[in-house]
Amino acid sequence: MAQPGRLIGLGVGPGDPELITVKALRLLRESPVVAYFVAKGKKGNAFGIIEAHLQDAQTLMPLVYPVTTEVLPEPLSYEQVISDFYDQAAVEVAEHLQAGRDVAVICEGDPFFYGSYMYLHARLAERFNAQVIPGVCSMLGGASVLGVPLVYRNQSLSVLSGVLPHDELKRRLADTDAAVIMKLGRNFHKVREVLAELGLAERALYVERATMSNQKIVPLNQVDPMSSPYFSLIIVPGERWQG
Amino acid sequence: MAQPGRLIGLGVGPGDPELITVKALRLLRESPVVAYFVAKGKKGNAFGIIEAHLQDAQTLMPLVYPVTTEVLPEPLSYEQVISDFYDQAAVEVAEHLQAGRDVAVICEGDPFFYGSYMYLHARLAERFNAQVIPGVCSMLGGASVLGVPLVYRNQSLSVLSGVLPHDELKRRLADTDAAVIMKLGRNFHKVREVLAELGLAERALYVERATMSNQKIVPLNQVDPMSSPYFSLIIVPGERWQG
Ligand SMILES: C[S@@+](CC[C@H](N)C(=O)[O-])C[C@H]1O[C@@H](n2cnc3c(N)ncnc32)[C@H](O)[C@@H]1O
Ligand SMILES: C[S@@+](CC[C@H](N)C(=O)[O-])C[C@H]1O[C@@H](n2cnc3c(N)ncnc32)[C@H](O)[C@@H]1O
Repeated sequence: MAQPGRLIGLGVGPGDPELITVKALRLLRESPVVAYFVAKGKKGNAFGIIEAHLQDAQTLMPLVYPVTTEVLPEPLSYEQVISDFYDQAAVEVAEHLQAGRDVAVICEGDPFFYGSYMYLHARLAERFNAQVIPGVCSMLGGASVLGVPLVYRNQSLSVLSGVLPHDELKRRLADTDAAVIMKLGRNFHKVREVLAELGLAERALYVERATMSNQKIVPLNQVDPMSSPYFSLIIVPGERWQG
Repeated sequence: MAQPGRLIGLGVGPGDPELITVKALRLLRESPVVAYFVAKGKKGNAFGIIEAHLQDAQTLMPLVYPVTTEVLPEPLSYEQVISDFYDQAAVEVAEHLQAGRDVAVICEGDPFFYGSYMYLHARLAERFNAQVIPGVCSMLGGASVLGVPLVYRNQSLSVLSGVLPHDELKRRLADTDAAVIMKLGRNFHKVREVLAELGLAERALYVERATMSNQKIVPLNQVDPMSSPYFSLIIVPGERWQG
């Protein structure tokens, strides 16, 4: 029997194809199988980033998220659907690994920073040799294009999800030196309200699709809450230290 | 007069020379002047990462931190010394920029994530064209070699400095889903105590010089507090989400 392949969680960076690391690019080229999570009918962000580097001999393995309606009959059923989906994806990836083929799972940003790769890792890393290649995460891609230092010296940084309830978001934002808020989209309106209530709206910066070719930087008070995309984030930078 | 050069804050990643991005590598090679912060008598971490790529025609510009004793006569004098140092470094960098030469300031990890580059940026970005190339930050390099997903879904992540006082560190660690603690060194003992008090010591993972050739992973309870280096960090990963 063949020696099993390696599972590689491969961070491809926040969007600009040049922001992939030299290591990720090398392993991408060396991997016979390239897997990626993607919404039905979409090309996939991570895929778009690395597409130009793919060779004909490589096997592409799209892992297509199940379609779910926004409102589900009972609270747990979405979790079940998605959990079954990851189980099934792990089975398919394992077949390649067992046959001795390395599988690179490409991930937008960094694999271990809120990435879907983590669910494959949880299912396969005990049985197979798994390796993660870190990538430039979206918050640092965002800070770079906004031209704003994120955190100074001994400041505390909180990375928060826009999905959090109003009060929890407010409490956490009130008690940190610097913050990044991810997962905006339809949470944008709530998040902007919280920032305004805390007097942080002036300091906060907003970017959509940071480092991608269709990147958009919009002043926070001019964002249309109805059109804020999923790939957007807000940065509340730390106060400049007078070093 | 020549068109002024560009100031480039160039993230080189956490240590493994292959974890530099393709973009940073390109701009590094294109920059006539390569500047870097370094302690007196040391080679410099960022410098070691990119050394192999330098060409003879490039001008190297070490920015040597002033030597300070640990204990200073009055609280503000260290801040003054360091502030004067950054002022002077900015003057020297500006001379190259004014003469039309791009200056790449290489930074370990990401420039806007607790990097010294931020102090040059603050002094020069209004007068010159400044651009930051984001890099893989140390906490993600650390998570990758520890093989541990950092944060799931809507979990909150706190990035904290080991310099924080015991009580503040404890309060912040008690109120987050996942945490990274940087700047250990002689703060290690205090940090481990706080983690133990919170019952987090079992969950916490420790790494020295992550992704560097002399990387060391040691179980938290086996670390000798007297020998924890500055280039180390602790990760308290988020609880696995059953996705
Ligand atoms: C599931 S998380 C994935 C994060 C990714 N693994 C990383 O390292 O940044 C998705 C969230 O990341 C943020 N995001 C990812 N890429 C982005 C980009 N290029 N610009 C702005 N936000 C981005 C958005 O807030 C989005 O809701
Ligand atoms: C001044 S901060 C610089 C952070 C850097 N700009 C980044 O993006 O990670 C220095 C701290 O980063 C952490 N650090 C940097 N590189 C590291 C590495 N390779 N392994 C572990 N910790 C590291 C340590 O906690 C250290 O005290």
